[in-house]
Amino acid sequence: MPRINFQQQLVALKDKLLAMAALSQQALSLSLEAYLTGDMSLCDHVKEIEAAINTAERDVDEMAYDLLAKEQPMAIDLRFILSVIKINGDLERIGDQATNIAERARSQKDFPQISLPIDIPDMGEKVGVMIRCAIQSLLEADAKLAEHVLVMDDEIDDMNRAVQAELIEVMMQHPMVSTQALNAIIISRNLERTADHATNIAEDVIFWVRGSDVRHKFSLAQAE
Amino acid sequence: MPRINFQQQLVALKDKLLAMAALSQQALSLSLEAYLTGDMSLCDHVKEIEAAINTAERDVDEMAYDLLAKEQPMAIDLRFILSVIKINGDLERIGDQATNIAERARSQKDFPQISLPIDIPDMGEKVGVMIRCAIQSLLEADAKLAEHVLVMDDEIDDMNRAVQAELIEVMMQHPMVSTQALNAIIISRNLERTADHATNIAEDVIFWVRGSDVRHKFSLAQAE
Repeated sequence: MPRINFQQQLVALKDKLLAMAALSQQALSLSLEAYLTGDMSLCDHVKEIEAAINTAERDVDEMAYDLLAKEQPMAIDLRFILSVIKINGDLERIGDQATNIAERARSQKDFPQISLPIDIPDMGEKVGVMIRCAIQSLLEADAKLAEHVLVMDDEIDDMNRAVQAELIEVMMQHPMVSTQALNAIIISRNLERTADHATNIAEDVIFWVRGSDVRHKFSLAQAE
Repeated sequence: MPRINFQQQLVALKDKLLAMAALSQQALSLSLEAYLTGDMSLCDHVKEIEAAINTAERDVDEMAYDLLAKEQPMAIDLRFILSVIKINGDLERIGDQATNIAERARSQKDFPQISLPIDIPDMGEKVGVMIRCAIQSLLEADAKLAEHVLVMDDEIDDMNRAVQAELIEVMMQHPMVSTQALNAIIISRNLERTADHATNIAEDVIFWVRGSDVRHKFSLAQAE
């Protein structure tokens, strides 16, 4: 019964991708915690997770390539495996963004902690929800939920722009905190990039479920 | 003779990817020119090219998916098609970086042009060379050339770090030019990201040519 075996392999592939997603999410939340608390041991932890992510990325890709080469899947299964390969790449890049944030946290530690008129924790929380929704939409083959992720991305873009405008003002008024303000601007951009990766994942889920290419076609009207 | 037809389709796929690469490279060089000259008509041009890139990305993906579904290629051809799908994504993201640079150029135009102690044209030139080498390594199935791209990436990372350190100093000394300095910092980061995409392309070429996964394994020692 080779096809039953094939379905089992698809489930195993999905499980591997979920483990990869968990690592990326954990790296992101720890890197933000490092930035917000100044606890540098968390930066080391992020670095370890990044190594695990890189291994997991290779494993997922190899498994997907093996399935393509040996099973020559058709239609919906083919689209699923191609989506997994792309989602895998986005999860790895979320790990990269977390590493960037951890680096900012580290470079911040020699400067006085100051209070800035922006809300990174809120932004981080929203981006975390986007990733969770994107992964859940994959698990449940839920294109509607994936579309919701695309809508949330607009909100993060707005938040990132607002952060930047606020902090430019801070820099001009208080040049001595330029480093801290720049760190916050760059972390905000890292979060905005992370949201883009969640959006890519959601688009891939829609591609898999609906079989149509949603990229560059989505508008708010479709989401409602 | 279906296999001859298949080889022709692979050549057509490569040609489509090359057209996509040309668009991405053009978008990047025009966006930098817009930033350096202040010619805003170039920003409109970048926007048009970005639309063309998005269309080209879909075309390449559809053609690759069709080949996978209908021809069920094996071994080296399978790896080539999977590499094309990944390279396609990286080229599209180079287009996104160009769009970001063009946006910076536009936001810059209401501020006095100032001279900053950094060399964005040189950095842009080097990143352009990286993209060209990455694409050439694909055309010529040249893994050695692709490895050279991986080495160049380290240089761009160093340049980006130096730009940032220089411009933080500028911001602290001259807060009134914080906006211009921040724009330059972000453009430098956009170039660094672009170099990362060129690196991804080179890694995919190595994967295709050598059949091994070079990602996260590369060290300078191997390149020499």
